[in-house]
This record gives sequence, C-alpha cells and structure tokens, in this order.
Amino acid sequence: MGVDVVLREVGLRDGLQLVPRVLPTAEKLAWLRAEAAAGVRAFEICSLVPPKIGPQFVDAPEMVAAALALDGVTVSALVPNRKGAERGLELGVHQLNYVMSVSDSHNRANVRRSREESVADFAAIAALIRELEPAKRPILSGGLATAFGCSIEGAIDEYDTVRFAVMLAQAGATRIGIADTVGYADPAAVRRVFKAVREAVAPIPVGAHFHNTRGLGLANALAALDAGIKQIDGCLGGLGGCPFAPGASGNVVTEDLVFMFEKMGVRTGIDLVKLLDVRRSLDGILADVPLDGALIKANLPKGFGATVN
Amino acid sequence: MGVDVVLREVGLRDGLQLVPRVLPTAEKLAWLRAEAAAGVRAFEICSLVPPKIGPQFVDAPEMVAAALALDGVTVSALVPNRKGAERGLELGVHQLNYVMSVSDSHNRANVRRSREESVADFAAIAALIRELEPAKRPILSGGLATAFGCSIEGAIDEYDTVRFAVMLAQAGATRIGIADTVGYADPAAVRRVFKAVREAVAPIPVGAHFHNTRGLGLANALAALDAGIKQIDGCLGGLGGCPFAPGASGNVVTEDLVFMFEKMGVRTGIDLVKLLDVRRSLDGILADVPLDGALIKANLPKGFGATVN
Repeated sequence: MGVDVVLREVGLRDGLQLVPRVLPTAEKLAWLRAEAAAGVRAFEICSLVPPKIGPQFVDAPEMVAAALALDGVTVSALVPNRKGAERGLELGVHQLNYVMSVSDSHNRANVRRSREESVADFAAIAALIRELEPAKRPILSGGLATAFGCSIEGAIDEYDTVRFAVMLAQAGATRIGIADTVGYADPAAVRRVFKAVREAVAPIPVGAHFHNTRGLGLANALAALDAGIKQIDGCLGGLGGCPFAPGASGNVVTEDLVFMFEKMGVRTGIDLVKLLDVRRSLDGILADVPLDGALIKANLPKGFGATVN
Repeated sequence: MGVDVVLREVGLRDGLQLVPRVLPTAEKLAWLRAEAAAGVRAFEICSLVPPKIGPQFVDAPEMVAAALALDGVTVSALVPNRKGAERGLELGVHQLNYVMSVSDSHNRANVRRSREESVADFAAIAALIRELEPAKRPILSGGLATAFGCSIEGAIDEYDTVRFAVMLAQAGATRIGIADTVGYADPAAVRRVFKAVREAVAPIPVGAHFHNTRGLGLANALAALDAGIKQIDGCLGGLGGCPFAPGASGNVVTEDLVFMFEKMGVRTGIDLVKLLDVRRSLDGILADVPLDGALIKANLPKGFGATVN
C-alpha cells in the first residue's frame, strides 16, 4: 500500500532520552516490534553518544540489529559528532541524523561550538560517507534544531533557518530535518519556512519535527503537510521534550498525528487500532513517566475503521 | 484596532453547562468582566432553559444585563426553543443561538423531534423576530451540532450539513454556526464543509465551534480559518464538552486558540498576558473541575509580546 506521509517514531530516542531510568532492552524491543507490526515504517532507534552521557542507549548495537531485521523499516540513529557517525556506519543504520541549532546560543550551550563549526563537523561526516561505495552510503540527515525559536534567544530569523539548511545541503546532506525544539513554531511560520527550505534544497527531501510545548503540534504538522512535507516525526504518548520541566509537553503525539492524517484521508500505512494497543503497553513500561495524547482517552470515533483506510 | 478573527468565549454557557455545582453570580461576573477587559469581544452568556433543566443559568437576567453594559461586547444566549427565544428578546441579547443536530438520532435524543420539526421551530423564532422593527432585531444564529459526526450515528453525510445550513438560512438565520460536538471533524473535512456552507449561505456569516475530544481542536480551527471563517468559539481552560465522561476533553481552549492565531499574525484583539491571568483565576473558582490547555503550562514564548501584536 502506498503512503502519503511517512510518520517516523522517535520515541525510542527523543522520547527516552530524558527518562532517567534505563529501560530494559527487552521492553524497548517489544515496543519497537509491536509498533513496526502496527505499520510504522521509520524509527529513530538511539542516540550514538558515549555511555556516560546516554546510559539509555548503551544497548544501541542490539537495538539497531533488531530494527534492521524488521522488514521494510528505515532505521535511523542520532549522531552528535563524527565519532557517533563512525559508530552509526559500523552498525549499518539506514540514516544518520546529525543535529545542530539555528540559534547560536543554543548551539554553543549544547555542543560548545559555533554554528559554522557544526557545519564543518557535518561536512567531515559527509566526507566519511563519500568514501563508501554508493550502495552502502546511508541517508545523511542534516537537522536544524530551534528552527523557529529558542528559550535563550527567543525568536529566530527565518532567513537563518533557510541559510543553514542550504549550508548543510551543500556540505553533503541527503535529507534536511527542521525541528521546532521548544514550541515556538506556528502554522503560518511552518508554511513559510518549510516552503522556503524545500525550494532552497530541492530535490533533497525535508522532514519535520514538532514539539507540542504550546499545544500547536498537530496544527503545525498540518501546516507542514500543506507545505508539501512528507516525513513527520512523532513520539508515542507524546513522550520526550522535557517531561521533568514543570508543565512542558513533549513531542507531538504519534497516535494523534496518525489519527489526524488518516481521518483526513492522508494515508500513513499505520493501523490505529494496533497502534493504540502499543500505546497502552507504554502505560506499563513507563508507568513513572507522564504521557500525553487525546486519542488514547477518547478512543476512535464510531465507524472510523469502516469509513477510512 | 481591527481584528482578523472574532473569538467568542462560550465558557460561561457551554463550559458551565455540565458543571453540576452552580457558580455564584459574582464569580461569573468577575470572569466575564476580566475576560472582556483582556479584549474578548463576544460571549455566549447563558442558556435560556427552564431553571429546573439549567440551574446554572437562573441568573441569566443579571448576567445578560452586566454583559450588555460592557463596551463593544456582543452578547449571545443559547435558545433551545421559541420560549427561550422570547426570553432572549426580552433580555435584549445581541444574538440568539438556536441549535439543532444534523444527526437525526442525536436531534431526537436531545430535543425529541425530527430535524425538519427543528427547522420549523426555528422558522417560528425567525417570524417572531421579523415582527420587531429592524433596528431591534438580534442576530439569529442557526446552529448545527454534530455537523461532522455523532456518537450515535458515527459519520455524518457532509451533504446533510450543507442542506440543513441552507434550510436554516432560508428559514431566516442571519448567521450560521457549524459545530463539531463530539470530535469527529478533521482539517480536510473542515475545509470542505465550511467552504461549501459559506458558498451555500453567502452572504450570511458562518461561525465555527470545535471540541477538542480527539486533540484536533486547534488544527480544525486553523482549517476553518483557511476556509475563510472569521468567528470561532472557544472555552477558557477548555472547559465543557463532557468533563465527567471518562477522558473526553472539552471545548477548544480559548487561550491556546488566541496564541495560535496571534503567533501567526492573525489579529484577535486579545491581550494574552491578561487572558492568561483570567485563566489562572479559574483555578480558584473551578478548583473541582478538570481544566485543559497547553499555554497555561508552558507560558508564552520568550519575546512573544515584543515580536507580535
């Protein structure tokens, strides 16, 4: 079955990243396999950081191997630097996600370097990949965090977002990812920025990543779809973001995103009844973590399966 | 200051309707006046039902009088029948909101009559209004509940929604209201239905009323704006809907709606800092009622006031 939009589950990485308790690998594997069985075809599995920084991801090799064994699933890993990219290449992931911030202050706070230095790091990773024979090269995603605003700097100049997207593309990105890291995007800005970025980096595909910090996650995803975006991230149960900061919501909720699109007739290839079962299983393995989402509480509307899909 | 969209606060009616405890009039008046002072220019104040059915609204005369005394505020009341319309005319409200359901089963369950009988009732109210001299005639809003789906019937034929909107317009409506009563709408359906209804009843204005049952409230409001709708309802704190049914969210959250629009540069005329203060005051007077909303938890983004408004 064809799909109109690819929803990428990033809960196993972005979602778990801030959960202080390390989840047993078996529980993560069960989640991954069940969600893949519900039809999700793209996952960000892990962050390839040193174990001291990311204890949640010490089982990355096992997780990646299991994901690669799933039929038709695109497996990506977050790589913060060249070292991480080398590990990603060793593990054989399909996609390396490098992320820098459009906000200079945020980039310095996060990775202690200027944005231009981050672009140079990225170019070095691209060079590494170019050494591989073409069939073995993974997708190299150049990601831009705080693309709409940042808690340090406030508003971000949209021109800067487009400018750094072009720099990453020129440095060798084969995909661009644009992220509203802390809930500063609005649907009008999303339409403007994604349209401008798409045109500036064409034919490279552009993905979207939204947080639901101020409740606009789904409206922004709709706006991205309007702007022609076909790859959108989500976290089951809205996991992630900064669940331990008072009040802040996490990532846009995968199951609500799937519901919105499927209800609109935008095909995701995902079975919502099965996906809600997977979502409910998180209540068990993440009982100590606040989860978000509307569909899980209200359930599917009457006759949903009969009229859509 | 001109506005691009009028947000109508319906919390005092739709929000309080299902709150079993009767709020003291003084608390409702304080809420009304504070929200008007924040720039909200349209309110649904009460439901003009018999006191036995709506004990929350026994103070309707006092509430309406206080609202009418506010400068530049449009005051509306829900009227379930001719009797209620007569009371509304006596009280001198600016707008009478009559509501029937597009779902025949829902209409029968709610008001024990067929949809055609409801349209006939509406025509009788319109005749009543035509007896008044033109300057004294209130806006007569013909509202269609369950316009996108219904918990009894499931999906609703979109043609039926357009058809009954036309019937209400022909019966004398000077405004049409389209409501997604139980969270069956999606942005694609919203764009189709509102465009079709607008074209069918032009030049009569069309208002939108969304519930956030399945999380799509803001995305649907965005879609309504895309379809040219300039009047949208909301409830402060997402009050209403069916807060005592397990898990069901209430109305779309006024403050989140204002934030989305203002952040997009769509002018509402509402001061969000003041509106959030009013929202916080609800924590006191409605401490026993679950409230919803993202902005109240995350607060305004840094620099918001400086770059928008």
